[in-house]
Amino acid sequence: MKNLVDREISKDLRPYGEQSLQKSNHLSKKQTSTQVEFFSSYKEAFDFFSLKDGITVSFHHHLRSGDGVINDVCQEIRSRDFQHVSLMPSSIFPTYQGIAQLIREHRVNNIITSYCNGEVSKLVQQGLLQGDFVMQTHGGRARSIMTGERKIDVAFLACPTVDKSGNGSGMEGKSACGVLGYAISDLEYAKKVILVTDHLVESLDQHQLDGKYVDGVIVVDSIGDPQGIVSGTTRITRDSIGLKIAKDTTKLLDALGLIEDGFSMQTGAGGTSLAVAAYVKELMKQKQIRARFCSGGITSYFVEMLEEGLVDKLLDVQCFDLEAVRSSKENKNHIAISASVYGNPDEANPVSEQLDFVILGATEIDLNFNVNVTTDSFGAIIGGSGGHSDIARGAFVTVVVSSLVKSRLPILRESIRTITTPGCDIDLFVTERGVAVNPLRTDLIQKLDQAGIAHWTMPELLQIAHEMTGVPRALSFSNQVIGYVEYRDGSVIDMLYQEGFE
Amino acid sequence: MKNLVDREISKDLRPYGEQSLQKSNHLSKKQTSTQVEFFSSYKEAFDFFSLKDGITVSFHHHLRSGDGVINDVCQEIRSRDFQHVSLMPSSIFPTYQGIAQLIREHRVNNIITSYCNGEVSKLVQQGLLQGDFVMQTHGGRARSIMTGERKIDVAFLACPTVDKSGNGSGMEGKSACGVLGYAISDLEYAKKVILVTDHLVESLDQHQLDGKYVDGVIVVDSIGDPQGIVSGTTRITRDSIGLKIAKDTTKLLDALGLIEDGFSMQTGAGGTSLAVAAYVKELMKQKQIRARFCSGGITSYFVEMLEEGLVDKLLDVQCFDLEAVRSSKENKNHIAISASVYGNPDEANPVSEQLDFVILGATEIDLNFNVNVTTDSFGAIIGGSGGHSDIARGAFVTVVVSSLVKSRLPILRESIRTITTPGCDIDLFVTERGVAVNPLRTDLIQKLDQAGIAHWTMPELLQIAHEMTGVPRALSFSNQVIGYVEYRDGSVIDMLYQEGFE
Repeated sequence: MKNLVDREISKDLRPYGEQSLQKSNHLSKKQTSTQVEFFSSYKEAFDFFSLKDGITVSFHHHLRSGDGVINDVCQEIRSRDFQHVSLMPSSIFPTYQGIAQLIREHRVNNIITSYCNGEVSKLVQQGLLQGDFVMQTHGGRARSIMTGERKIDVAFLACPTVDKSGNGSGMEGKSACGVLGYAISDLEYAKKVILVTDHLVESLDQHQLDGKYVDGVIVVDSIGDPQGIVSGTTRITRDSIGLKIAKDTTKLLDALGLIEDGFSMQTGAGGTSLAVAAYVKELMKQKQIRARFCSGGITSYFVEMLEEGLVDKLLDVQCFDLEAVRSSKENKNHIAISASVYGNPDEANPVSEQLDFVILGATEIDLNFNVNVTTDSFGAIIGGSGGHSDIARGAFVTVVVSSLVKSRLPILRESIRTITTPGCDIDLFVTERGVAVNPLRTDLIQKLDQAGIAHWTMPELLQIAHEMTGVPRALSFSNQVIGYVEYRDGSVIDMLYQEGFE
Repeated sequence: MKNLVDREISKDLRPYGEQSLQKSNHLSKKQTSTQVEFFSSYKEAFDFFSLKDGITVSFHHHLRSGDGVINDVCQEIRSRDFQHVSLMPSSIFPTYQGIAQLIREHRVNNIITSYCNGEVSKLVQQGLLQGDFVMQTHGGRARSIMTGERKIDVAFLACPTVDKSGNGSGMEGKSACGVLGYAISDLEYAKKVILVTDHLVESLDQHQLDGKYVDGVIVVDSIGDPQGIVSGTTRITRDSIGLKIAKDTTKLLDALGLIEDGFSMQTGAGGTSLAVAAYVKELMKQKQIRARFCSGGITSYFVEMLEEGLVDKLLDVQCFDLEAVRSSKENKNHIAISASVYGNPDEANPVSEQLDFVILGATEIDLNFNVNVTTDSFGAIIGGSGGHSDIARGAFVTVVVSSLVKSRLPILRESIRTITTPGCDIDLFVTERGVAVNPLRTDLIQKLDQAGIAHWTMPELLQIAHEMTGVPRALSFSNQVIGYVEYRDGSVIDMLYQEGFE
């Protein structure tokens, strides 16, 4: 038997070249742009690159509610009367009115995103897209772009500072937003990459976006509203139930031996998650230990830990507040990472898989620990996975924290409206009424028993919930499909339906 | 159609859970050791972990010719009269006499390594192994361990400094060797991991080997001979032919637009490669540009570039000299990477694929640009891929530099004894008599033509060589197989045969 380089190979061996060249299963990035064009308006750039009907356009969401680029690009698409456009924003916030307007005018085929809230959700659920509404995870989005499963014709990447070579940084300029982790796969794999900035400089000392991938730069007066870019509202909860849950969670993690020198963690920016971070910090000082890294969206709480020497490194995919933006620029050990390095399942060793524990939320959870963070109980789209499924899968111990009952509705239910993250990846569910351990984790159950810490089964917690609220009435939902939830590997974990009832 | 979490999915979609959980195709690292045992002899460790006949043992080669651990472990294996042992050292140097002795005593089944030189080569070629002799690449070795394709029962990892928690560093201690990049996959995936050190400290400020993967530490008087650990012999060639090749290569790279602000490169530690680095450095100063990173085995030449501000980062998988060892400890931007991050084809974005150009060597090259760095022209095993195939595949432009004729034998041949790296991954072959461009790279040919730089075809260069040496006599080699060359993806690119003739 001869292989691709014409050598005789024993026939029990796999010959070289049989399955193509088996290069890692992502596209080549070898074609880099040789020249960067500069424009002073969207119009010029659309003309120069001959953008047309039917294009797929991507964006990142690092300017969050303050983003001006998405709305301006949508306006240019409208003014050119484009049809059959597909949009791939990494997330969609209520201020992205331009997208809503395009949908209303029936100009949009597909929307592929990782989080969606606001009017776009409502319009999508009315069935106004001509194609699919697909909700990915942050890591899954990077994977799908890098493998070529999702193709981007042109990425418009808001970039707070750009230099004359087309290098870009989020850390400087009047619209500074910090790390640009969700933009990296778009930068490296979109057919055309256009940075949009309101701050052009001669040259940048440090940049996250490499000019070699950039085809054009649009210089405008403003890329967004600084008020909306960093909300600054990430605060530790003052709610006594949230604080109790956070305290109990910290005790639990300590009893499981997870808060030891060199550990790693991620907590979200929610009030209860931040309270866990605060209790963990207190405990670390008592125990005189350091963490190896904290990852995820970064807030001032983690910056403080870095600057107090309590953690070696922050691995940052997006900055949630101004302190995080400052630190991302100043601290060498505040390290910018991409969505792929963060949670792409194709990465050999993504940050998500190096985590000792993570604290996540849920809008609903079922008896099998399946979690919904995509819709509310009635099916209205109010969020999406973001990194939820990526991190839940990777962390050694994945904790969901929530009060057992919210607004008189149990969070724990026999069945949930939408599955975002599979129950096999959720290990602990901590509520003010007690903790449930996933029966798959016999190791954790054994440790809690040894430590004499009480825990419940999900059916037991459900009974407690029902005693508080009564048994919720079974509802008959609409079965009109409007999209689907894509798991991080590209498979489909659940369908999305029109809101409401049959 | 229902998916694994029991949700109804449209039948044109791929259901979640169909192909297992599609976790990235490497083993889980979740099982970390809870306790580190300390021993004062190999004997104690062998007893404690009940090591037996038939085990597969791995080592790294960062102590190079000075390694004492491999020989000591082999001695312990002999004294216990073990049979059917398999060995996975990342490379084999002539000083690893212990391995040779085990082979002579017919105790060895398989040897899997990425480089082999010295007596072990000779014995293996006599057919003294009971199983296979497999030559991998550095990136392929990491891949095969991380996917579970190759299983290690116990890794004995020489470690110049270890602390009481089992963390290890190569950067300190009397046997300091710097970065331990080839040890990381063994550390994370071997069933048992034993560090061997001659310098135990209370605690380490920085460590590359994480104690959480470590099962045991053996503290001995000496892990090796400092004289042999860092040879200190990496010097720029003084040979006028080598200098001409290096100068021509640099001009060529510049004409191709590869030496521009923000470029990245790797050159080996060979004399001609280092001369290229020196000429490139000179050119960078003239052009007042900086490189983004230099990678690979790191020498003092790259440390100088880092400390003079000519390069942003060194991405270091192994240190070749004492200056590199010092810098790896002192410079924040001298970054230790693993063999996987360096060149594992399963990584989404390994360093190898971020390189603009690389300078590599060859012992032979054929008309299709296939390169041999594994055997000499007669089939004697004298080296191996190391990172050759990994980097050749990844870099945007891969250059092989060599004099056209060595010791009156042409390096360029119609057919070569062993294919290490496929010709499709080699772009330029630079000799003192001219440069050949791979016809696959029409883009490079066009640029050279535009720049008015002469280039030849391989048949033209072959004719020049034959005019110098005469046409080499066709030889009839042994067809007795003794092993094979494994390409980085695990497929087989060539067989290895007994040395000599039929």
